[in-house]
Amino acid sequence: MKNTLPPCILVFAGHDPSGGAGLCADIQTLSQIGCYTLPVVTSITVQDTINIIENKPLPAKQVIAQAQAVLADMPVAACKIGLLGSVEIIYEISRLLVNYPQLPIIVDPILAAGGGKVLANSQFQQTLIHELLPLTTILTPNSIEARSLTQSDYTLTQAAQQLMEYGCQAVCITGTHEPSEQVENRLYSKGQLIKTWQFPRLPHSYHGSGCTFAACVAGYLAKGQTIDIAIENAQHYTWHSLQQAFKLGRGQWLPNRLALPQDKRIKT
Amino acid sequence: MKNTLPPCILVFAGHDPSGGAGLCADIQTLSQIGCYTLPVVTSITVQDTINIIENKPLPAKQVIAQAQAVLADMPVAACKIGLLGSVEIIYEISRLLVNYPQLPIIVDPILAAGGGKVLANSQFQQTLIHELLPLTTILTPNSIEARSLTQSDYTLTQAAQQLMEYGCQAVCITGTHEPSEQVENRLYSKGQLIKTWQFPRLPHSYHGSGCTFAACVAGYLAKGQTIDIAIENAQHYTWHSLQQAFKLGRGQWLPNRLALPQDKRIKT
Repeated sequence: MKNTLPPCILVFAGHDPSGGAGLCADIQTLSQIGCYTLPVVTSITVQDTINIIENKPLPAKQVIAQAQAVLADMPVAACKIGLLGSVEIIYEISRLLVNYPQLPIIVDPILAAGGGKVLANSQFQQTLIHELLPLTTILTPNSIEARSLTQSDYTLTQAAQQLMEYGCQAVCITGTHEPSEQVENRLYSKGQLIKTWQFPRLPHSYHGSGCTFAACVAGYLAKGQTIDIAIENAQHYTWHSLQQAFKLGRGQWLPNRLALPQDKRIKT
Repeated sequence: MKNTLPPCILVFAGHDPSGGAGLCADIQTLSQIGCYTLPVVTSITVQDTINIIENKPLPAKQVIAQAQAVLADMPVAACKIGLLGSVEIIYEISRLLVNYPQLPIIVDPILAAGGGKVLANSQFQQTLIHELLPLTTILTPNSIEARSLTQSDYTLTQAAQQLMEYGCQAVCITGTHEPSEQVENRLYSKGQLIKTWQFPRLPHSYHGSGCTFAACVAGYLAKGQTIDIAIENAQHYTWHSLQQAFKLGRGQWLPNRLALPQDKRIKT
């Protein structure tokens, strides 16, 4: 990183005191791949490795004030959006980001905690779809989220096509929750399936794996990689973080985001 | 880190959307030295690399709820305390930590932002002194903070002795703000000066240098190092982070916390 400035990634996400997900995951991931995080808190959670106990969104004004301060001070190369907290926050972030049409925006549509706590009601989902998806460069839902945002009986391809009709340019659906033996992740763009990747299924449940993946995609895009290469490298980084995860609490395992040596973080 | 679990550090600190100080600094630093951060937000700031624009402490109950969730779930090896936000938060954290008498507690007594914004009035300072210092293993003030917490006309040794009389076991006063050609940092314990270190003065002002140092001390203590060795290694890590800092915003430079290769992070 010496002599080259790291690209700045503006991140909107929740705060997780268990240290595995949300802004902590984003900060760790992005610094490991040579990016600098501008972390804007949307919500303060009380959580452990088992579940989210409390999710308290900040007032939308306070979220936007954080973002405006850093946007005025530093050059932003990409934006990653995780837990949004409230309908008002979705509205205000969309209103802010519409002024940055060149900025790649990666949205990880978090609808529930790993432990099951629901974080997005129907109004929340509709606002996400209508306000934020038209601004989204890459959406990174897991298969449950992809179907929840469209129709529960859809195939993954139908769900992806519907999401692209809502306005996002590309969709990467992760397949951990599907019954297949290997995990299959799928990238869709311009209305069709572009590429699939298969990974050996790992034995545990992991805290913050989706955050890690989406942050990594944002970072690699900001470093100039194309969408498919960024997604390939982000899967590589994330899979190794999970494969070397550790168990510190009573619930999910925690990704080891320093698992890969720095010179092995880019696969291609 | 493979096959050994990282020690967990419970951190109470403010959130900084410019990504250089507070919890971001702690998370980056601790993960780099092989520790795991349990980050509890005390306050949401709006800030950039120039100054803090707004500092909004959370309700004390919300701070404690975050801490209780992770204390019940994961083994905590040390505690680091940075920005405290309010008098009520100091009271509640002290009331919580008194139940963990074996836990090393490192307190970085933040009284003002690098840009000058005052974060601690007289009542705040008195509460810090009377509630938290008796629980403190190592206090890491800079020379301005050491004198502010005691008497403005004190020598550093007099200030350190007064702080130890208030109850903290050791005091490490950093000397960046003193007029000396080299920066001299001083460790006091058991009422007296134990050791001094000199470092070449670096050319800029840095965002989050104090957070980096105190987090690093907490991490190395949790890994079993003695106080003087932990402080030596933390200075080594911090100095190199600052020496390779980058300028991304209009104000202070930002520490590069990946500056030292992993195998060179422990000096001794």
